[in-house]
Amino acid sequence: MQQAIAILDSGVGGLTVVKEVMRQLPQEKIVYFGDTARTPYGPRPAEEVTRFTHQIVDYLLQFHPKMVVIACNTATAVALEEIRARLPVPVVGVIHPGARAAIKMTRTQKIGVIGTIGTIQSNAYETALRQISPHIEVVSRACPLFVPLVEKGVFHGEQTRQVVEESLSELKETPMDCLILGCTHYPFLTDTIASVMGPQVTLINSAEETAREISTILYHKGMLATSNKLPVHQFFCSGDPWMFKMIAQGWLNEQIKVTPVVWQVPNII
Amino acid sequence: MQQAIAILDSGVGGLTVVKEVMRQLPQEKIVYFGDTARTPYGPRPAEEVTRFTHQIVDYLLQFHPKMVVIACNTATAVALEEIRARLPVPVVGVIHPGARAAIKMTRTQKIGVIGTIGTIQSNAYETALRQISPHIEVVSRACPLFVPLVEKGVFHGEQTRQVVEESLSELKETPMDCLILGCTHYPFLTDTIASVMGPQVTLINSAEETAREISTILYHKGMLATSNKLPVHQFFCSGDPWMFKMIAQGWLNEQIKVTPVVWQVPNII
Repeated sequence: MQQAIAILDSGVGGLTVVKEVMRQLPQEKIVYFGDTARTPYGPRPAEEVTRFTHQIVDYLLQFHPKMVVIACNTATAVALEEIRARLPVPVVGVIHPGARAAIKMTRTQKIGVIGTIGTIQSNAYETALRQISPHIEVVSRACPLFVPLVEKGVFHGEQTRQVVEESLSELKETPMDCLILGCTHYPFLTDTIASVMGPQVTLINSAEETAREISTILYHKGMLATSNKLPVHQFFCSGDPWMFKMIAQGWLNEQIKVTPVVWQVPNII
Repeated sequence: MQQAIAILDSGVGGLTVVKEVMRQLPQEKIVYFGDTARTPYGPRPAEEVTRFTHQIVDYLLQFHPKMVVIACNTATAVALEEIRARLPVPVVGVIHPGARAAIKMTRTQKIGVIGTIGTIQSNAYETALRQISPHIEVVSRACPLFVPLVEKGVFHGEQTRQVVEESLSELKETPMDCLILGCTHYPFLTDTIASVMGPQVTLINSAEETAREISTILYHKGMLATSNKLPVHQFFCSGDPWMFKMIAQGWLNEQIKVTPVVWQVPNII
């Protein structure tokens, strides 16, 4: 099936999912939308994030995608079920894949989760984990300073280290054997987070796990791409296309073309 | 959904999938069938393995399972598509989950596969891997002595070490960064295989990966168990129930009840 997979995020975070889909499913074409004009979604009210998510999905439907991936944990937490109910194609979020990977990985049944304020307040990870395995202990922590760092392209250095250390100081003292990076922006900060948490804590990259599940679902629905031609991906963003392009090209390690999209005035907040 | 997951294998190998389903999906009820009277399937003709698989599936359908898991790589390689086509419930094999996990794991695009003669001759792993990622290099090797060792309960010791070393001697010299244990019996020998292959090769346990995908599919179909009561599993085998019970209780680390099933004479080979 040669139709594209549509992937959306509040900004550049979903590029961590894009990179993994490119690696694990090299024949699949991707259409990406990053809502960089309105990032971050984390501190916004659920109703607003839901409305923005519907709007981006509507934009992406013009490409007749075979699957829609909500590559933003905040949007998944509040809007996944609504979007799934209204689309005729499979809709994949980023919360359950990370939860299932953590359940596979943990031996102590003690799992940590970090995410945006919206994701952590929604309790979506705890709900997903407990739905499958009721005796799992979950400890969560919102890290609202991480997304702005990533959207500015500040992945390393003293400031990043300091923000990560302060944000994780309590979690570091809590027993756990894996920590879910419950925001698609966080894999940009993997090195620093791993070095702060130490080697006894396995980091679960929800981007990597989501790509794996995209593969599972496309296979089970008989929807895998069958062409051997390398696909040409398309990228759209609502904010500064130059900044988006710099971050995307650095992360994906290839040249891309970015098309800016200007939202109608009533929707800009 | 409180119906059971039906899991079948040529013998005790599928218990590696059972153990992982019990760990990753503790609320799910399992009905297991091990065809220990006719193990191993590996050296048998494809037509025969297919016929046996249909027969076991027919037996298991009396329990109205919500999903059927062919927890035998040989049977998956030859019979998955036929079984999937004839059942109204999801049918999961053990080859694609291992293939997808290897694609997620590899950084060198060089993947090893070990399995029974039937699995390796079918080229099922190579087909699954290349369908998703055409540039992956695959090197395979049949290890026909492993299943008889496991069915006899000989998981460790000098004889096991010697058989594993001889079987893997060529593969050990081939560059790869992960090795798929392409037979559900092989996780019983994990320690020895890992020590022979060395720390630079990650072993992919298809049992663990299959349980993860069972979780994914049940979730996406809205079929996860919702009861908090601990399920009571059922075990059937066609051969010596005492031997089956010894191996199963040792592996699963809990007491189980095993019901022997006697095949009609015309089907015994």
